[in-house]
Amino acid sequence: MNIPDNYKVIFVQGGASLVFAGVPMNLMKKGKAAYIITGQWAKKAYQEAQKYGEAIEVASSADKTFSYIPDCSDLDIPEDADYVYICENNTIYGTKFKTLPNTKGHILVSDVSSCFLSEPVDVTKYGVIYGGVQKNVGPAGLVISIIREDLITDDVPSYTPTMLKWKTQADKDSLYNTPNCYAIYICGKVFKWLLANGGLEAAKQRNEEKAAILYNFLDQSKLFKGTVEPNSRSLMNVPFVTGDADLDAKFVAESKAAGLENLKGHRTVGGMRASIYNAMPKAGVETLVSFMEDFEKKNLK
Amino acid sequence: MNIPDNYKVIFVQGGASLVFAGVPMNLMKKGKAAYIITGQWAKKAYQEAQKYGEAIEVASSADKTFSYIPDCSDLDIPEDADYVYICENNTIYGTKFKTLPNTKGHILVSDVSSCFLSEPVDVTKYGVIYGGVQKNVGPAGLVISIIREDLITDDVPSYTPTMLKWKTQADKDSLYNTPNCYAIYICGKVFKWLLANGGLEAAKQRNEEKAAILYNFLDQSKLFKGTVEPNSRSLMNVPFVTGDADLDAKFVAESKAAGLENLKGHRTVGGMRASIYNAMPKAGVETLVSFMEDFEKKNLK
Repeated sequence: MNIPDNYKVIFVQGGASLVFAGVPMNLMKKGKAAYIITGQWAKKAYQEAQKYGEAIEVASSADKTFSYIPDCSDLDIPEDADYVYICENNTIYGTKFKTLPNTKGHILVSDVSSCFLSEPVDVTKYGVIYGGVQKNVGPAGLVISIIREDLITDDVPSYTPTMLKWKTQADKDSLYNTPNCYAIYICGKVFKWLLANGGLEAAKQRNEEKAAILYNFLDQSKLFKGTVEPNSRSLMNVPFVTGDADLDAKFVAESKAAGLENLKGHRTVGGMRASIYNAMPKAGVETLVSFMEDFEKKNLK
Repeated sequence: MNIPDNYKVIFVQGGASLVFAGVPMNLMKKGKAAYIITGQWAKKAYQEAQKYGEAIEVASSADKTFSYIPDCSDLDIPEDADYVYICENNTIYGTKFKTLPNTKGHILVSDVSSCFLSEPVDVTKYGVIYGGVQKNVGPAGLVISIIREDLITDDVPSYTPTMLKWKTQADKDSLYNTPNCYAIYICGKVFKWLLANGGLEAAKQRNEEKAAILYNFLDQSKLFKGTVEPNSRSLMNVPFVTGDADLDAKFVAESKAAGLENLKGHRTVGGMRASIYNAMPKAGVETLVSFMEDFEKKNLK
């Protein structure tokens, strides 16, 4: 990812949930922001922003359990909105924005926690990109924020905690206090590994190849089906179901017994979910599909 | 440390600097609090609290560069103060409260970042004990807070970030979001090591023994002198000077060349500082004193 000269990278201790408050504190100058609700984390960010001003839901996919990304080409965004907010990849539901919203000239703020460094990003399209590092980059407990420098100011509400004011960390190059050194160290190792392995273009190719193996299987399976509309599918998180809760439970139990971990869907949606982040090799996806093929043969009525 | 039944332990991502805001947000019900200023971190906590109500300085040792702990036996604490705040061990200045302040019935809040798990603590004397783990307990990026349960409420100002409201983490046993798992894992290892090595009573004995070696040397040295009043001396951080800035610089350079790391005093006070946390063995202190004896012989005019 090329970081343009007019953007600053800061390392923030904690998780994205803390930044949910930091975004409106630092950006809601006129007291209004547009939120696109594509899942639980976008909704939590939206609810948090309501504490600090008028957060307006301008699109949502709640009507179909967040199984798609809404059309964001012509949203009703208030002219005086300070920013438009998205959660770009929705871990629980397996969706991803393939096209960024038409913000109609407003600043775009994106939580990229679960797609960070999975593919190249044109930073200039955003005002703020931020993500917890715990999916593709490093151990939990650290957020990396990439912020357009003109958005880093002292003009924040008086109640803004020093540590949530972006300028605090920007002015001190993220060393205002002792940072999460171990997580930053590991992130550095991952950055070097990515660069040594073809950078983000190559990461994208690997991720597309891995996801295609799984989606192609799901699209022809007579037992399993993906839960996400094809044009909203994440490269990172692939939820699927059999349509029968008992059979889903059997699949989760048997796959776990076979050494395939963490295939149970998030407790809020059920079913199964394969998270195939950068660290998951192609062979892991192939093993999963092979297991699913066997399971289908044994269980298809 | 025995945690009484009516106290809750929560793990907070980030550092003490973030808790500086969390304390007044969660505790300033009447909008007033008493702060004892014994160094830079106490002062930062005090300044942060001013954003959220009336923070009152009831004692300070700023007059002598924080080289002592003020007498806190009879402070002028407003009756309607919500709490009394201290930084119990002051890393930069090498002081420690040997006697807790007489809070006159008010809740005591203590930042124990740099003396956490160095000795036994009677938790019941405090309303809130909190500390960044990065000195004695684990890697930076995590705070452990021990909070009397009646102080954990939903009654916080509307602008309080969800992640700074203690009840958020208390209700979810610190799993509201993905915590700093690695740091918590390492803390667990350290807890087990401490328990297997005599617990906090034994830790205190080891720390007193280590500190005595250094303080005894300083008290008889003709070249070096400790900067802290004897009855305020920390077991963890031992600052000392020769009284000659050039000689201090020579000591720092030569000790570093001899493999003794991090002896330079904090940039705000100069001189030298030996931090002898739990992880520093007695042999490390003996090596330092031996080096200081040699340096004194060579440099005493």
